[in-house]
Formats: sequence, structure tokens, C-alpha cells
Amino acid sequence: MRDLDLSSLNPVLSSSAAPASAREAVQALRASQIREVANAGFGIADVLPFWFGESDRVTPAFIREAAAQALTRGDTFYTHNLGIAPLRDALSRYVGELHGATPADHIAVTSAGVNALMLAAQLVTGAGERVVAVTPLWPNLVEIPKILGASVETVALDYGARGWALDLDRLLAALRPGTKLLMINSPNNPTGWVMSRDEQRAVLEHCRRHGIWIVADEVYERLYYGAAGERTAPSFLDLASRDERLICVNSFSKAWLMTGWRLGWMVAPRALMDDLGKLVEYNTSCAPSFVQQAGVVALEQGEASTQALVADLRASRDHLAAALAQLPGVDVKVPQGAMYLFFRLAGAQHSLELCKALVREAGLGLAPGSAFGPEGEGFVRWCYACDPERLDAGVARLTRYLA
Amino acid sequence: MRDLDLSSLNPVLSSSAAPASAREAVQALRASQIREVANAGFGIADVLPFWFGESDRVTPAFIREAAAQALTRGDTFYTHNLGIAPLRDALSRYVGELHGATPADHIAVTSAGVNALMLAAQLVTGAGERVVAVTPLWPNLVEIPKILGASVETVALDYGARGWALDLDRLLAALRPGTKLLMINSPNNPTGWVMSRDEQRAVLEHCRRHGIWIVADEVYERLYYGAAGERTAPSFLDLASRDERLICVNSFSKAWLMTGWRLGWMVAPRALMDDLGKLVEYNTSCAPSFVQQAGVVALEQGEASTQALVADLRASRDHLAAALAQLPGVDVKVPQGAMYLFFRLAGAQHSLELCKALVREAGLGLAPGSAFGPEGEGFVRWCYACDPERLDAGVARLTRYLA
Repeated sequence: MRDLDLSSLNPVLSSSAAPASAREAVQALRASQIREVANAGFGIADVLPFWFGESDRVTPAFIREAAAQALTRGDTFYTHNLGIAPLRDALSRYVGELHGATPADHIAVTSAGVNALMLAAQLVTGAGERVVAVTPLWPNLVEIPKILGASVETVALDYGARGWALDLDRLLAALRPGTKLLMINSPNNPTGWVMSRDEQRAVLEHCRRHGIWIVADEVYERLYYGAAGERTAPSFLDLASRDERLICVNSFSKAWLMTGWRLGWMVAPRALMDDLGKLVEYNTSCAPSFVQQAGVVALEQGEASTQALVADLRASRDHLAAALAQLPGVDVKVPQGAMYLFFRLAGAQHSLELCKALVREAGLGLAPGSAFGPEGEGFVRWCYACDPERLDAGVARLTRYLA
Repeated sequence: MRDLDLSSLNPVLSSSAAPASAREAVQALRASQIREVANAGFGIADVLPFWFGESDRVTPAFIREAAAQALTRGDTFYTHNLGIAPLRDALSRYVGELHGATPADHIAVTSAGVNALMLAAQLVTGAGERVVAVTPLWPNLVEIPKILGASVETVALDYGARGWALDLDRLLAALRPGTKLLMINSPNNPTGWVMSRDEQRAVLEHCRRHGIWIVADEVYERLYYGAAGERTAPSFLDLASRDERLICVNSFSKAWLMTGWRLGWMVAPRALMDDLGKLVEYNTSCAPSFVQQAGVVALEQGEASTQALVADLRASRDHLAAALAQLPGVDVKVPQGAMYLFFRLAGAQHSLELCKALVREAGLGLAPGSAFGPEGEGFVRWCYACDPERLDAGVARLTRYLA
């Protein structure tokens, strides 16, 4: 058989001779440019990393202890697909306090915020459908629908004197009839842009008119630097009923410093929950039981910790922005949300190459703006979720590099 | 606007008036009949549940302590998409010892075995493609490709004097050129059927010839009751190279009693791993860091515990089979793998209704055979992963019900 040229006989048989590879749609998914930059620094011991979307602080001890206690109790069994009742109830109280009544049967616990985004996409969109996303944006929202065979059109924020801003008319024009889904992330990673209440209202009304689903990634809602007493950024949940075409995704990662726990949730119409339960079963079946128990404690005892974190992040943001503003070639605006400065840097027209050079030559780890879409080119992202001394050390490295 | 009949004006606008619902492909996914049976017992305090695929034993203490120690150390950050290096290395040694050399760069850590199945399906199949699955089968393997828009054709095992058996010719005929993927689970849930080495060889050679991917769910490989000294059921890994079209999926759930931890892995061609890393990023990003640390300890210190578990399961299997064989209307065969007896029961022509009656009237929780495909109708599944006293109590209830 080996001597036959099978490809000339049968095109199906010839496929067996080709090396194994993933399907083309998966090969075409974007790889992380942040990882590419990190790889460029491989072997360099002294790197200050500000490239990932993660604080350098460990999860608060009372949350870690709650998980350890659940393990000691023997809480190691499967849970309900949609999450344990105490966690869904605690989320119902938490979300309800921030955004109005949200019964527990509208809430599903997920294996991370990104898992909630994947589940939301699976719920409402599939092959051949049209999805719109607002960019610059962390790649996941743009790539997830493509895994399901949908096509994604992006609408770029504009960068101007006041930072990143939404051209509402352009977004509404892109949300033409027949669009299945809008994916939108506010407060936004990477820009820190926060969608206003009026913008949310206009988008919601437009999507209602045309039957377009909204999947709102509101993972950074608590990392919001508004007026005193404002605990959260504007949320679609403030405006919408709980039974319309809106899925709001959230996570324990940012506000409770639980990145490595992979625990998230979503709020969705009650009519979807049975179907969502099936999808959870077929994706991860449930989040780990003792992780869910820790989530209950995070919600019930974590408010002071979250508020202290946000105060620290605000101070870090202002500290870093003030320092960067002194540097030549830096154009930095101070956004109202998330935990990043996404700033224009002279010489960053090829931000991927610049960031590789920064890690190799200056030991400074930043994320290239192009990682978040072509409209991010010319910018770099700096995660400021660390103490001011560490930020100062990073600024000193950037200063030396630019000099 | 409210008084207008929008549907008569514009069919797109009319969609906004329809209630929110999941897309049709998701609505069409099977809901769990086991859950339907469990719901039928809602409010009945005294139910002996044998319906889930889960032992009643807590995870061994040394594994729970490893996770608690990682939490105490502050191991709460994101990990590499494909898993922490110590776990991939430990899996490389573990798999290598059982099935031959398997370098760590062929191994990915996943957020449960079912998550590995979803990732494997995303890697190789999509809308409009043809998938074949061997049934009766836990629903997940059949439903996962449908979420991605693929169509699934099932090939039923035959039930005869020696229990469930594969008609190899029928399977090979179904694996016609153009088929993208075979999904096969051995040892099998629910039947306990174990695919023989010769059957695996024939299927592998056929799939090689036609470029068909094999996704092998080998989660029960250690729950195998072969000859003394045989530590594992036959695996496709014993026959295949590490770079051909084979993805083997496994899990910590069964052999280490870690169901509630949601930790799994897969072995796949090196050429797929970069694309797999992207898919992990877009599905869950990583498994929890301290859960992965516990996985390392499970592999390095868990062999005696696993072997003791398998010995207990073998005794439970034999104990239950002997008791059931005494009952009128029961036709039970003793399979070589997994942790279920899947037996024919007179009166189970409508197994879903029978199982609902059993829980309501006898306080006995069994899984209906129809939950695993139409060829399972007339059967019920009993998970025997518990101590003999509990099994005896269940058999007594079935005896009273049948009398």
C-alpha cells in the first residue's frame, strides 16, 4: 500500500497521509501576543511583569480558609450543574443589592468568567451567524463565537482628547437587523473605557427592537473609580428586565483576587436556564464544590476587602498615570475603570516588536496594544494592580529605555 | 409602537416580540433523564441513590491536604493554559508507565474529563461534519459535537449471552470515508463494556486509512477487573503513535475519587498543542492552580489508594451481581470495567417511568437505560461504588418492589 500514490486515487484517502492538525477555524484563532512577548523574555531572570490581567496579591486569607475548611469537611462531590444553592442565593443577594432584584433562578455558577462567555455564546449563536464586538478588547470575546462558526464584526472605539470613546451611531449601524449577538465589555479590558448609562440605554433599546442578544462582560464592574459611594460601574442589569435578551457575565477573579480559582457566574433569562444547565453539563458539569463554598464566603464577608482593593487600585492608577505623564513620547489618559493604563507610546507603531524589545532590553513586561485588535496598535497596556514601589521600578526601566 | 402589529410589517422586527430562548440546536440537546428521575423523588427523604456515576467516598485525605497546603502557600494565580509543568510532568510519567513513552508536551491539563471531551471536539470538528459514537453511552459524548453543529450517528453495541459486545463490521461500515471523528468510551458508561485490544487495533487501522480522528474517553481505564496484575484496560495509547489522529481523554474523578474537583487531562499530537492552548484559553483558561497541585500529589502518592479502590469496587460489583441474579425478572451480566451494572429488568420496557416509580414507591434511585440511548431501553444502571451494606439495602428495596 505504501508505494501507491493514494492521493491520485482518492482524495479522501489522501487526507490520512497529511499530518494531524486542528481544523482550520481553530488554527485561525488568534494566539496570545502577550505570551509571545513573555516568550521573548524567556531566560531573562530580571523581568518586571505588568502584562497579565492579574493582581500580584494572593487571595484574601478568609477565602482560602473557607475552601480549605470545605476540603476538610469532605466537600468533594459533584454539584448541581448551575451551582450550589447557597452560592446562587448569595449571588442573588449580591447582584440584587447592586442592580435590583435578581432571583437565584436567573443565576448560574460557571467555571470562570471566560467559561460563562463561552456558555453564553453556545446558548445563543452558532455557525453562519453574525456577531458584533466593540474593540479594542481582550481577544476572548472576539474569538469565542468563531469557535462556534459565527462571524464577528468589530466596531472600534475612538481615541481622542478624553481617551477612548464610543461612536454610538456607528455601533447602532453595525447592529443591523439579522445580527444575532452583541458582545461588549465595560469596564473594558484593555482601555479602561466605561460605557455610560445613556449609551447602555440606547444600545439596549436598539437591540430590543431588532431581537439582538447582548452578552455583557461586566467582570470589572467593581473596579470602577466613579464618584464617592458609587460601588459599581453602570450595568445593563440596571436597565433591563431579567427576562429579555441579555446575559451578564461576571467573575470572582478581579474584585476578590481569585484569578486562579476559575469561578464566575452569569445572569440570564429564566427561560434559558434549563438549556444552560445542559450546556454546563457538557462543558465542565460544574465548578469545583469547595471552590463554590469559598465563593459564598467571598460574597458574604468580602465587601470591605473589595472596597479596600478598589481604593488601592485607584491610588495605583493615579500614581502610575502621573509618573507616565512625565515621560517623553507618552500620551496617557486616566480611565474610570478596570486595572490597566492603555497608553500611546512613541515608537509603538509596531507594539508587538516594541514590547519584545522592552522585555529583552529593559526587563519591562508590557502587553502590546495590537494584542487587542488593530485599533490598539501604537498603544501598550500596563496592569497597575500592584504596589506603587513596583510601579516606580517599572517606570524607571521605561524611562531608561526611552532615554 | 406598542399598538402596531410589528410582525405584519417586518419579520425581523417580529423576532423581538418572541420570548427569549436558547437556539434550537441547544434546545434539542438531551436533558438528563437521571435528573428527571431524581426530581420525581423530590421531597422523599428516604432514597438510596445509586443513579449518579460517583462513589460515596470522600477524596483521600492526602489529596485534600495537598490542595489545602497550596491554598495556604498562596497558590491562587493563573497557570499556563495547558497546565502547570509539575502536573504535566507527573502525567507524562504516569501515562508513560501505563501505556508507553508520552512526553509532557503531548499532555494538556483540563477543567474535568468532560471539558477535555469538549476541547477535543472543538479541535477537530465543526458545523456540518459527521461524527460516529458507539452506544449505549453517557449522553455527553453524543451531545457535545451537536453543540458545534456536527451531526452524530450512533452504532449500538449488541446485548447477548455474554453481555454487551461490539459488532466490529457494523462500526467499520459506519466509519465511512468523509467521517470526521469517532467518539468511543471504553470501559464504557453505562454498560461496563471493555473494548478488546484486537477491536482497538482494527478500528485504529481503519481510521488511519480514512483520516478519521478518534477521541477515546478512557476515564474508567483503571476501573478494570482483568487478570491479576493488569492495572488498566486496553488503551488506544498502547497501539498508536503519539502523533497520529488520536486524542485520549482521562480524568482524576474516578480512580482518585475526585469527582467534585473537575480535573482531567488529554493526550494529543504535539502538532495540536498550540491550537489546544488557544481553545483552553477561550473555554476556561486553566484549571484552578491549587487543584492542579493536588493532582500532582494524587499521581505521585495515590497508586496504593487507587488499587485498593479497584479491589473494593470489584468486590462490590460481584456482591451486587450475585444478589441481583437471585431476583425474578433480572438479567444481569458481570462486565469487566467501570462501576456500573447495566441490567435488564422485567417491567423496564419504559425504564424512565419504572425508575420514577422505583424512587417514589421504593426509595430506590436507579438510572433509566433510555438515558443512554434507545438501545438502553429495557435496562437500568446501578452504580455500585459504595459498600456492600448499602448495596444490600438497595437490593432489599428492589426485591420488595418486584414482589
